[in-house]
Amino acid sequence: MTQRNENGMPMKYSDRFNLADARQVAHAAEEEAIRHGWPMVISVVDSGGHLVLQQRLDGAQLGSNDVARQKAETAVLFRRPTRVFEDAIAQGGLHLRLLGMNNLVPLDGGIPLIRNGAVVGAIGVSGMRSDQDAQVAQAGADALALAEPATGF
Amino acid sequence: MTQRNENGMPMKYSDRFNLADARQVAHAAEEEAIRHGWPMVISVVDSGGHLVLQQRLDGAQLGSNDVARQKAETAVLFRRPTRVFEDAIAQGGLHLRLLGMNNLVPLDGGIPLIRNGAVVGAIGVSGMRSDQDAQVAQAGADALALAEPATGF
Amino acid sequence: MTQRNENGMPMKYSDRFNLADARQVAHAAEEEAIRHGWPMVISVVDSGGHLVLQQRLDGAQLGSNDVARQKAETAVLFRRPTRVFEDAIAQGGLHLRLLGMNNLVPLDGGIPLIRNGAVVGAIGVSGMRSDQDAQVAQAGADALALAEPATGF
Amino acid sequence: MTQRNENGMPMKYSDRFNLADARQVAHAAEEEAIRHGWPMVISVVDSGGHLVLQQRLDGAQLGSNDVARQKAETAVLFRRPTRVFEDAIAQGGLHLRLLGMNNLVPLDGGIPLIRNGAVVGAIGVSGMRSDQDAQVAQAGADALALAEPATGF
Repeated sequence: MTQRNENGMPMKYSDRFNLADARQVAHAAEEEAIRHGWPMVISVVDSGGHLVLQQRLDGAQLGSNDVARQKAETAVLFRRPTRVFEDAIAQGGLHLRLLGMNNLVPLDGGIPLIRNGAVVGAIGVSGMRSDQDAQVAQAGADALALAEPATGF
Repeated sequence: MTQRNENGMPMKYSDRFNLADARQVAHAAEEEAIRHGWPMVISVVDSGGHLVLQQRLDGAQLGSNDVARQKAETAVLFRRPTRVFEDAIAQGGLHLRLLGMNNLVPLDGGIPLIRNGAVVGAIGVSGMRSDQDAQVAQAGADALALAEPATGF
Repeated sequence: MTQRNENGMPMKYSDRFNLADARQVAHAAEEEAIRHGWPMVISVVDSGGHLVLQQRLDGAQLGSNDVARQKAETAVLFRRPTRVFEDAIAQGGLHLRLLGMNNLVPLDGGIPLIRNGAVVGAIGVSGMRSDQDAQVAQAGADALALAEPATGF
Repeated sequence: MTQRNENGMPMKYSDRFNLADARQVAHAAEEEAIRHGWPMVISVVDSGGHLVLQQRLDGAQLGSNDVARQKAETAVLFRRPTRVFEDAIAQGGLHLRLLGMNNLVPLDGGIPLIRNGAVVGAIGVSGMRSDQDAQVAQAGADALALAEPATGF
């Protein structure tokens, strides 16, 4: 379930990520949110899980501040989309053990940011249904993936 | 020491503040930081102390993430610049009791955002010396004060 | 479900455990992890649940730092393999109450370390599937069990 | 007071650091501790403040587990030796404001690890007097500085 590289190995972390990247990611996510009229919080963290950029769109519920950031942190800490954990919970049984972890938010809407085959951070979105949160997060993640490979770091 | 209105009364809180305002504040602060080559974290909260916008400039120390947000929170929670608390600490004696409070960061660099005589939020800045942090925070706060009064809320 | 001694009584705790023991345990676990190419965090605690040794193998996900330590803590605090709790969760029903406990991580991969019929500590492993984590933890626990009884404490 | 590079600018963070490096650092620190018969906890974190290696020498006080790790975290979060904060506190007056921060431990014994002019992590040591802790931490930090520059990452 982990994010894997072309060799099937778990992806490495990389610090090749900066505020301009985070803004590009958040901007694309915000455009997607605004297109649908969804009031959301958008959070972008680096590969150490530290906040680079967070913005709360007008009208977003206050509780989404923590949730968005925690989704992004979870996606970095476990190098996978938080959707993986949401799906596991839905299957029930053994998978409910995930609810006993305290550094993991099992809600769709957190997506790793990949550059040159490495995890450079993550985006977390909260404010609407979790699949809508994920749709907006994906728009943000795609913006980085489509950009030119990083140079000059 | 509290922020007071023209009648000498403690200012009220107001929720007439949105993401566009926060961006205006943060942008002015960022320009001041960049002018000096200061790597900083800039945090803007609303009148409930909840984050509206946070951005970490490239090269800022990671510890400034929490400090900038806590300065902004402190400035809202106590409706005064955090400089007030720093000055009190410097006087020693009884004032050291402030160090026993856990919802207060006594470091210059947190400044309330005022609009129409009410506290609509605060900016917190961290990353350099606290007087430099405050200089950048003030540039952000001034940007809101100079702007046209909010309308259309 | 508790770890029991030859008389069927719950095992006692013992403090006959030191850093050299922890290294022996962690080394055996690391060898097993490396044999399979599994990037993991290996955590060893004493009979008070306090960390003696923790090491994060290259490429391990950051979230495993807390999880590995918490698995080891759980195994000591409740004197049983964390597998017991995972199995209970899988059965559902009343067992889900375990998810309401906050000093227990119900994930396989935490195993008590036994010496002379007493719990001297635990090993916790995280980074892959929980059964793989447990396989590595078991290799560590076996290393201590196979060693000569402690003397000279 | 920040760690600065040859151009006088605050040092950047870099992720060019792995478990082998952490072991080299911890080993040199441990040798220094053993030479003096000092029971200590030695903690090594990466440039994101995440634990890579922690080891508690036999006889170390349990409270040093958290202190050593927090010293290392502080040194990374603020990119400077924790000695800087200890010295500031000793001067009193305004500097006592540091005691109001909650993500900073102002005790000597936390030292950034530098490689190729960037902060790749930190070592934190606790268990004896803080100057002795720092002596041991320095031995660890020196071991990395003396090593060949990293290649092949």
